[in-house]
Amino acid sequence: MSIRVIAFDADDTLWHNEAYFQEAEKRFCALMENYLPQHTVARELLHTEIQNIELYGYGIKAFILSMIETAIRISDRTIPVDAIEKIIQDGQDILTKPVEILEDVEFVLNQLKGRYRLVMATKGDLLDQERKLKKSGLESYFHHIEIMSEKKEADFEKLIRHLDIPPSAFAMVGNSLKSDVLPVLNLGGHGFHIPYHITWAHEKVEAQIEHENFRQLASIRDLLEHL
Amino acid sequence: MSIRVIAFDADDTLWHNEAYFQEAEKRFCALMENYLPQHTVARELLHTEIQNIELYGYGIKAFILSMIETAIRISDRTIPVDAIEKIIQDGQDILTKPVEILEDVEFVLNQLKGRYRLVMATKGDLLDQERKLKKSGLESYFHHIEIMSEKKEADFEKLIRHLDIPPSAFAMVGNSLKSDVLPVLNLGGHGFHIPYHITWAHEKVEAQIEHENFRQLASIRDLLEHL
Repeated sequence: MSIRVIAFDADDTLWHNEAYFQEAEKRFCALMENYLPQHTVARELLHTEIQNIELYGYGIKAFILSMIETAIRISDRTIPVDAIEKIIQDGQDILTKPVEILEDVEFVLNQLKGRYRLVMATKGDLLDQERKLKKSGLESYFHHIEIMSEKKEADFEKLIRHLDIPPSAFAMVGNSLKSDVLPVLNLGGHGFHIPYHITWAHEKVEAQIEHENFRQLASIRDLLEHL
Repeated sequence: MSIRVIAFDADDTLWHNEAYFQEAEKRFCALMENYLPQHTVARELLHTEIQNIELYGYGIKAFILSMIETAIRISDRTIPVDAIEKIIQDGQDILTKPVEILEDVEFVLNQLKGRYRLVMATKGDLLDQERKLKKSGLESYFHHIEIMSEKKEADFEKLIRHLDIPPSAFAMVGNSLKSDVLPVLNLGGHGFHIPYHITWAHEKVEAQIEHENFRQLASIRDLLEHL
């Protein structure tokens, strides 16, 4: 193994994130339960979000816009304007949440720094991800950050080309098999999966991965045993 | 002059953009004229947009959210939901506009390609800028693209460090004195200003620039005379 660059996903790999979205989603479902049962609201929201990815990409602004669109649709345009105001406020609140780093992240980055070029590679809103990195205090560990509009094979291909290394020298560490692991393995890179206890429905995949470049880890600390 | 990397702003430097926003803004002001005179609506919208930059950054999603917020505020929460739906629709329409390349852009890129490393450096929504670059057919001219959350000195400093060149080897070409020229000159780089016939109010500066690394150009074609 001749890994030279290790790219870390950020949300739910370096710090907590999905929980904030799920809280906001719960408030949204409660707000809309006059129109539809909460679990149906959640399904409608997911449907809108997935449909809007092509238009909006990922991140909080897309999430707020999808909530507003869903509220208008399922209320058949009868949603009060106050409710829309509340949706915007709840969405904005996510942007101001504290950044809580996951256990052992800093210890592991410290061990790897200097031995590898470390990169942060994540989807979401550019400004929001930069702000979280700054708030986290982890900025100095990373050579640079890559905010990606998607994490598909073509996107990683571009990233690896830009890094000027062969795919076999690239490793990706993250909590999503779909976005962090599978596309990288397909390109000849290395994939380390660290599950997070909750996953956005759109990122879920059922997969049993058998691949020589794949490692399933229980925690980020286990990374050190495999490098 | 030992310029090695030339970074091009994209919106209103490589292709038309501001006109689409201004069209949408006009429709928004007309939609809201029951509440306030159109020019006051425009001022209120600008105020909201500037206030939200810190939270949302730049781009169309931020623009849509700022229009919705302004509509709710100036209607004192009486705006009909259909109007909010129309705002979202008008905003989304900008995302699907054709990309119209400005005159001589391709000719100039062709002349510079191979002699310099060309980079596209722009603000806005990540996905939207990637999509416009793809639609423009100009992708192959650029070594890579940088979507920046801001274009202030610190942001260019990071970009230049990442490019691994001294500031004096970096040139920026763009239509905004404030975002493309002044911060780069302050860092010791080169700034080429090509005005566009309309400018977003937030990008306007009154400046008379006298600097040995500054060139005021009438069109992108003039760039060739100075390199």
